[in-house]
Order: sequence, then structure tokens, then C-alpha cells
Amino acid sequence: MIPDKMREVLKKDGVVAIATLGEDGPHLVNTWNSYVRITDDERLLIPAGYMNRTEANITTNNDVLITVGSSKVAGINGPGTGFLIKGTAAFITSGPDFEATKARFSWARAVLAVTINSATQTL
Amino acid sequence: MIPDKMREVLKKDGVVAIATLGEDGPHLVNTWNSYVRITDDERLLIPAGYMNRTEANITTNNDVLITVGSSKVAGINGPGTGFLIKGTAAFITSGPDFEATKARFSWARAVLAVTINSATQTL
Repeated sequence: MIPDKMREVLKKDGVVAIATLGEDGPHLVNTWNSYVRITDDERLLIPAGYMNRTEANITTNNDVLITVGSSKVAGINGPGTGFLIKGTAAFITSGPDFEATKARFSWARAVLAVTINSATQTL
Repeated sequence: MIPDKMREVLKKDGVVAIATLGEDGPHLVNTWNSYVRITDDERLLIPAGYMNRTEANITTNNDVLITVGSSKVAGINGPGTGFLIKGTAAFITSGPDFEATKARFSWARAVLAVTINSATQTL
């Protein structure tokens, strides 16, 4: 389900945005493209250093929107592409997904694990 | 009010995320760092090609969250920085701000003009 082009984007330098909804409205946090790992079953694993508000938000509403993009990957209209990912998220603090993340990012206090519902190319 | 470091980020290659709130929940759209112009009075002018959902959302709730970042600008903890911008937005389709944007981006159907309430360095 994850397009090859999205995998290509995640190999380029760039900033990922992650939106959740809280009582005060939307909340946005960022990570780097290079921090996002795609599992064999096509979930996204994102190391969480802070992301406290994101964690609080998903306890009441686990919907997340994520955008990734790169000007270095060809898109629909020429250079540059981006994806809008809709999914549901959970914070994981133990088990193999957490351990694998912690091994790579020692500062990770948790893993934001995202189950993808759709990944749409937007450009 | 706009930090110099944020201006520096906008000069680097990168993806901007713009979040609004609609009836269905948060909505995210993207643009490129290089497309964002800072006016003398420190508003952001962003050319809108599509952004139809964003436009619809701000007619009922004009709050926007915007993130910008670059791995190429030094941050708090070393290489890489990012900013979370909170503001209010309007779509403008005439007048000098629109004309200036249209001159640079002929495909722009409108300008998303953002009045900044806060711009916080997050990394």
C-alpha cells in the first residue's frame, strides 16, 4: 500500500509534520524523514523524544495526519513530491518495536507507531 | 518578532506544513519553504494553487498552525532546527499582496495571508 515514491521521499533530507487533535484544536509536531522507519507490515515507527501533547491527544483521538515531501523526488508536475498519510497512532514503550527504535535513537522515550489508512500523493 | 533563524530556515530547501481545523478534524497541506514570503509587517504570504479545504476551514475557524524546519540550520541541540507558528489566516484574491504573489507564482489562485501570533523554536 505504501507507494515506492513515498519510500523514496523518506530517504531524502526533510521535515515530517504530524497532526493530532486535542481539546485546544490541532497540534503539530515534526520529525525528520530519516527518523521514520517503515515496518514489514507497513506501519510507520517514529521515535518520540518529547511529543507529550501528541501522546495526550491520541489517548482521546488516535487519528493522525502526517505529511512528508521532498523537492528532490519527481512528482506529478515535475520536481518535488509530497504525501498525505492518514492513520491511527499509538505510543509504544516496550516490546520489539520499541527496542529496535531505542537501539537506533537512544533518546527515544517511546515509539509513535502509525497504522496507515491511506497515503495519497499530493504533488 | 520573527526570529532571524526562522528567516534562515525559509531560505533553505524544505517542506512547510499548514494545519487548519474543519468539521472532519484537522487538515494538513504543504508548500515549499521557498514559496513563503515574509512581508515588512511580518505576515506570511503563501501562494495557494489548490488549498480548497484549507480555505473552507478558515471561513469557520481562521486559526492556523504552521511548521517549518531545516536540517541545514543549527538548532538548540546541534544541526537542524524547526519552528511552530501559530496565527490566523485569510485568503486574499485581490490587492497588492495578491498581485505581488501572482507576479511570482502565476498559478496562484489566491494568497494565504497569515498574521503570526507566535513563532516558537522547537528544536
